[in-house]
Amino acid sequence: MESSHIISIVKVQMKKENNNKILPRDKHNETRNIIHSIKVGVSLVLVSLMYLLNPLFHQVGENAMWAVMTVIVIFEFSAGATLGKGFNRGMGTIVGGGLGWLAAIFAQSIGGVGNSIIIGISVYICGTVGTYIRLIPRVKERYEYGVVTLMLTFNLVVMYGLRANEKVWEITRQRLLSILMGFIVCICVSLFIFPLWASDELHHSTVSTFHDLANTIQGCLEENGTLVSENESQLIAGFNFCNSVLNSKSEDELLANSARWEPWHGKFGFCYPWENYLKIASVLRELATFILVVGHSLQSSKQDMACLRQSHSEQLETCEAIGSRVAWALRELGDSMKQMKKCEENNKGSSILAKLKACKAELSMVISTSKVAILENGQVLAISSLVFLLMKVVEKVEELVQEVEE
Amino acid sequence: MESSHIISIVKVQMKKENNNKILPRDKHNETRNIIHSIKVGVSLVLVSLMYLLNPLFHQVGENAMWAVMTVIVIFEFSAGATLGKGFNRGMGTIVGGGLGWLAAIFAQSIGGVGNSIIIGISVYICGTVGTYIRLIPRVKERYEYGVVTLMLTFNLVVMYGLRANEKVWEITRQRLLSILMGFIVCICVSLFIFPLWASDELHHSTVSTFHDLANTIQGCLEENGTLVSENESQLIAGFNFCNSVLNSKSEDELLANSARWEPWHGKFGFCYPWENYLKIASVLRELATFILVVGHSLQSSKQDMACLRQSHSEQLETCEAIGSRVAWALRELGDSMKQMKKCEENNKGSSILAKLKACKAELSMVISTSKVAILENGQVLAISSLVFLLMKVVEKVEELVQEVEE
Repeated sequence: MESSHIISIVKVQMKKENNNKILPRDKHNETRNIIHSIKVGVSLVLVSLMYLLNPLFHQVGENAMWAVMTVIVIFEFSAGATLGKGFNRGMGTIVGGGLGWLAAIFAQSIGGVGNSIIIGISVYICGTVGTYIRLIPRVKERYEYGVVTLMLTFNLVVMYGLRANEKVWEITRQRLLSILMGFIVCICVSLFIFPLWASDELHHSTVSTFHDLANTIQGCLEENGTLVSENESQLIAGFNFCNSVLNSKSEDELLANSARWEPWHGKFGFCYPWENYLKIASVLRELATFILVVGHSLQSSKQDMACLRQSHSEQLETCEAIGSRVAWALRELGDSMKQMKKCEENNKGSSILAKLKACKAELSMVISTSKVAILENGQVLAISSLVFLLMKVVEKVEELVQEVEE
Repeated sequence: MESSHIISIVKVQMKKENNNKILPRDKHNETRNIIHSIKVGVSLVLVSLMYLLNPLFHQVGENAMWAVMTVIVIFEFSAGATLGKGFNRGMGTIVGGGLGWLAAIFAQSIGGVGNSIIIGISVYICGTVGTYIRLIPRVKERYEYGVVTLMLTFNLVVMYGLRANEKVWEITRQRLLSILMGFIVCICVSLFIFPLWASDELHHSTVSTFHDLANTIQGCLEENGTLVSENESQLIAGFNFCNSVLNSKSEDELLANSARWEPWHGKFGFCYPWENYLKIASVLRELATFILVVGHSLQSSKQDMACLRQSHSEQLETCEAIGSRVAWALRELGDSMKQMKKCEENNKGSSILAKLKACKAELSMVISTSKVAILENGQVLAISSLVFLLMKVVEKVEELVQEVEE
């Protein structure tokens, strides 16, 4: 009885948390969006000063528009993504400009109709090869924008070379200068005014996934115990959450990619092992798969579970207790990730592992043949699939402990 | 015995299929990439003719580079994505240009220092509001590129308005003309030279997911029967495939989004219900979740299964037979999708449903208390979780039948 009392207290707390939680997170996102928008506006104004102030305008000429373009195109949400795109644009412009310049010089040295033919061929080769390289998965992931910029710059330089013969060098210089100015403005605004770090985002989202999965698994199990029909909506919220975890792969990879570009800040050093976050995220996704199936299994065997509760409540209570312990373990792991302490200190890791081991032993006792023999078919199915899935959940959490320790 | 013979034949066939299948698909992708690259190269050459041929050059002037930019930026892999991006770029340019023109006229009418201040404010507002709108999920999904173009064009027009007073209209006209030419070249090349349709891609990937899931489930079940350790690699390939299905959401959405832009072609009419494909894909993902867990459950209870096979082979054979029937149902569904016939014709749909119902009845007979009582703990767990998961798989397939019928 005491344990069910505790469970209902936890439940009320969780509900409160749930109600309070979704709103602040949305609000938080909203604030970040507004901050980002204002930052872009400020950068654009700073860059447009190049046009508005005469001395600067004479330096870069009409090419000032490249600075504007740079700001609009490379200013991404997080500082890391902005740096990455800026780097790509810079390298693409320099390499593309260099190649284009060589092609233009070569074409000019031939002259006449040959000039146009050479340019046509070089444009074709650059377009075809560039597009092909752009489609290679490894390049697409990190350097696609650089390749696009390279193609763009190459074509423009080659064509200017055709028309504005001697001015090529001047144009290139002005363009590089204005892109550099746009880049500097972007980086300064992005890094120094309310910076939004992809690394923070990735860190927080991973930590909060731990906590949310803990809530979901606890919610599922007590669900099935007490208020079956009323809390259907909470179960469905759990399903939705698990599904969103399952679909989070591309987002995580994007964040990790951006985080790699970010300089030392806060608690994250250079060369912080972001790929470990991806590994943890992938184990979390597998865990979410199992939790999802636990939820489905409980939902479909509601009737049988209700019967079981009346006749063999102690087995179900064991399952619930194990669910709470798994949730506890997940929260501990999440907290130790949040504080970025290794669980090894004060032996937390091994104590979590020991508890999980005990859970497995208890679970295997729930289904003993003698106990099972007196149940009905549906009930056997319901309880043993639950036990099996919980087993798998516990195993996944063990795997997580090891990943987090790294 | 006969059934195990059939199974081993199917298995050999499947292996062959697997070996032959992965290679052609990669080759197919490679060919498509090369075709796409060549198409981009050809378009760039066509566009660069604007520069190379004198009469055309006089029409559009230096703004010809906007055509080049248009081609590089909007030429996407599939025809639909290209059309969508082109539409976005066109609309963004027109609206942004219009707004920029108004702002420039207004600023000019004030004159003096007020001119610069008005322009600064309008640049700030456009940048902030545009960036904010760009981050709204619904806009981000389909119209992000349009908003970016709008911001870009607005800024450029406003700034040109400041410097090149009277020429604003002329510049806008030339720029629109060159963007239009770039767009027309892209669309013609994309639609008429070896078109790559996003709708075909989505259709094929959905159909092949049906077949691959069928292979996976059949592979899992017979795995567990005959050659446990040898075919570990095939099981892992199955896991990888299920995981890739689970991660396919964003890709499917992208394809459906592009497919919506594509004009009538082949077997797809206007307003083809692409959102149904997304629904089917989401049910397929759920099915993949369950199949994944079936695989994990078989992998972890290998020992118990081997014991079961020796003592109670008929239960396992039932499971295998059901696995084959589920696989058959999936293949039938995949084929009827491929031919785009409704299953209703010749009552295929209802016959599939009837067979699945029979499967469920058989499954519930596998776990009867009398049979279970003589097994060991681990064996109970293994067989009943298998039965439970197969139940869920069958239910999901039933759901699929209904979705496909729509």
